Amino acid sequence: MKAVIIIGDGMADRPVRELGRKTPLEVAKKPSLNWVAETGVCGIIDTIAPGVPPGSDTAHLALLGYDVFKVYTGRGALEAIGSEVEIQLGDVAFRCNFATVDDNFRVLDRRAGRIETQDASQLVRDLKRVTYEGAQVTFDNTVQHRAILLLRGSGLSAMVSDSDPQKVGKRVSEVTPLDDSAEAKKTAKITEDLLQRYHEILKSHPVNEERKKKGLLPANVVLCRGAGTLPQLTTLSLRYGIQAAAIAAMPLVQGVCKAAGMTLLNVRGATGTYDTDSRAKAKAAIQAMKSNDLVLVHMKATDIASHDGKAQRKIEMIEKIDDMVGHIVKNVDMDKTFVAVTADHTTSLLTREHEGDPVPVAITGPGVRTDEIREFDERACARGSLGRIRGVDLMPTLMNFLGKTKKFGA
Amino acid sequence: MKAVIIIGDGMADRPVRELGRKTPLEVAKKPSLNWVAETGVCGIIDTIAPGVPPGSDTAHLALLGYDVFKVYTGRGALEAIGSEVEIQLGDVAFRCNFATVDDNFRVLDRRAGRIETQDASQLVRDLKRVTYEGAQVTFDNTVQHRAILLLRGSGLSAMVSDSDPQKVGKRVSEVTPLDDSAEAKKTAKITEDLLQRYHEILKSHPVNEERKKKGLLPANVVLCRGAGTLPQLTTLSLRYGIQAAAIAAMPLVQGVCKAAGMTLLNVRGATGTYDTDSRAKAKAAIQAMKSNDLVLVHMKATDIASHDGKAQRKIEMIEKIDDMVGHIVKNVDMDKTFVAVTADHTTSLLTREHEGDPVPVAITGPGVRTDEIREFDERACARGSLGRIRGVDLMPTLMNFLGKTKKFGA
Repeated sequence: MKAVIIIGDGMADRPVRELGRKTPLEVAKKPSLNWVAETGVCGIIDTIAPGVPPGSDTAHLALLGYDVFKVYTGRGALEAIGSEVEIQLGDVAFRCNFATVDDNFRVLDRRAGRIETQDASQLVRDLKRVTYEGAQVTFDNTVQHRAILLLRGSGLSAMVSDSDPQKVGKRVSEVTPLDDSAEAKKTAKITEDLLQRYHEILKSHPVNEERKKKGLLPANVVLCRGAGTLPQLTTLSLRYGIQAAAIAAMPLVQGVCKAAGMTLLNVRGATGTYDTDSRAKAKAAIQAMKSNDLVLVHMKATDIASHDGKAQRKIEMIEKIDDMVGHIVKNVDMDKTFVAVTADHTTSLLTREHEGDPVPVAITGPGVRTDEIREFDERACARGSLGRIRGVDLMPTLMNFLGKTKKFGA
Repeated sequence: MKAVIIIGDGMADRPVRELGRKTPLEVAKKPSLNWVAETGVCGIIDTIAPGVPPGSDTAHLALLGYDVFKVYTGRGALEAIGSEVEIQLGDVAFRCNFATVDDNFRVLDRRAGRIETQDASQLVRDLKRVTYEGAQVTFDNTVQHRAILLLRGSGLSAMVSDSDPQKVGKRVSEVTPLDDSAEAKKTAKITEDLLQRYHEILKSHPVNEERKKKGLLPANVVLCRGAGTLPQLTTLSLRYGIQAAAIAAMPLVQGVCKAAGMTLLNVRGATGTYDTDSRAKAKAAIQAMKSNDLVLVHMKATDIASHDGKAQRKIEMIEKIDDMVGHIVKNVDMDKTFVAVTADHTTSLLTREHEGDPVPVAITGPGVRTDEIREFDERACARGSLGRIRGVDLMPTLMNFLGKTKKFGA
């Protein structure tokens, strides 16, 4: 027995007037997702806890069976792991954004107009030259405006604040220690110094001069957030005795999967944006099922559509996920495979933020106690037989179907 | 976005033969409560945990989002806070009842025939004269038979037993230490001594002689229970950044709300008994919504009806709550308001006690994932999309709708 988990990032939503008081999932044409619901057992999941808006990192940790209240050590380290930035115990890593500020250091755009990866890479080449006495500094970009800052050295701490004020119009925050330790003070100072030196380099960088000429926003500042250290997770392999692989384009989700001991599969055309090649992901998943017990397929674009407030786009992306699921279920042996579909959290088209509303889940496979639910959406699944469970319960539920959970007691 | 929570104390019940095997909620005419269910999302709540009968104090603490297993420090202190008896760290407070005992110190009536507040106040005037060496004693009455005993001094402890045997026909219990500490022993002795001296004063008090002449039960003893110390709660304001107010006539519920940092609103005609002016409460709630993010409206009479075993009375009180809810929803901007209706616990008309059965909940407001439930009662709501949640989850659920919960993770 094997299993595939398909996760639509931020796929769940609230009913919106624009869609006749329905959710994008309720409106989308999704025969394959509905097939999973109809042939399977449905429910709703609070990935963290009722009402708590999850981040994509904590949500995926929970869906992989980890108690996030115990294991979560901050976004930066997970993003670093996913970005193939080598991180060791004691290192402190930050998720960074190339962003645009005005002369008063107020944020004009938190993503420097979603700067192209190519431009960002050119900037990074020069930022990489900055060194710091007493700490080893690594700065790398990933996709578009996204980058990682990693500090290595003795006496560092992740207890430091973000420079990213998270809102346009606000001034860039100073990185400050979050406790009284010498380590936090030292780490805050190093980070703050580095970010200032990056700004000096960026504000007059030829790439940015070129961008301004083209009418593009300059990437004249680096914002950092989510200082984190290496999380210590018992791998899925150790925990359940399974081989597991993940197909995900986002470094943060890749980081979570890698930290859980999953093999990361690179799929050409998997971009983490609207144009991602979901068919290529499906094919990779089918292939990966041959040598793995569990394959997780993550799709980011649904979340982006909600953050952008684009209902029709979100529906299209759900239909893309549906096509991917359809391709997978038609090409694996469904007598020996469990397929679970869910979301990591609700992202509201209206608030454009992660929300704490539960997400739908459907699991099909041999021997599941099918219910009468025939549609995969927030409200239909809420009536399903799985009831309302927590994110941390999904993996044991699946591993139980695979015969991989251990009896507790005699 | 704002929210109102309406709590019918002990409103939930079990099906009874007298009502054709229905519950009072199932029989009552309640168009407004049903409207909340129909336009909202429904579920059931275990205020504490499945099968655990909650007190009104722990139930309200849980419904306000507190983990009662961590924060609960006994009823006495909460009742003291609600009764405007000034309580400090280190003080030990008891909830007390004026009661009637026979010559063998057996309880004839735990509430001295629900003695009028005026009579109780006269008795208290004389009991207040009793002092005790080594401790500062405060004794105050609130409504009817209810009173507060507060001890202040060094080396006191709330680990002492109740003198209230909780059942008619039983002998008054001795207050004993519940652990081996010198503090508990000292507190038990002081309390026991005080209660004996109160009895000496009460048994021949002119007010009681007068009561006996009128055929009323004398308040010849003070029963104490629920020794408690000041609870340390993070206020709702600190936790969610909201302004919150409460409309409740019962000191115990007032105490919980005050401890949570809510503003207590006094409403003329809100009596905490059958004759309470629920329309006045509705008007006060509507007014309070103008300057608060959250308003809690509590109604005690449903619980009293169950404790009295009066089914028709309970139905009437539910209809009174329905009228109150109707008045509120018609006079607030429902495009910007969430309305939640629930009970703090089940109080059974048959057992006349708090029971551990779950309570129904319905939440309406913009963007909730409506379900097909059209009636607000125990059995209809159990099929709702909210599923079965814990009391402690209600506040995050509502605050999530209000955009007041913080994202966990990135």
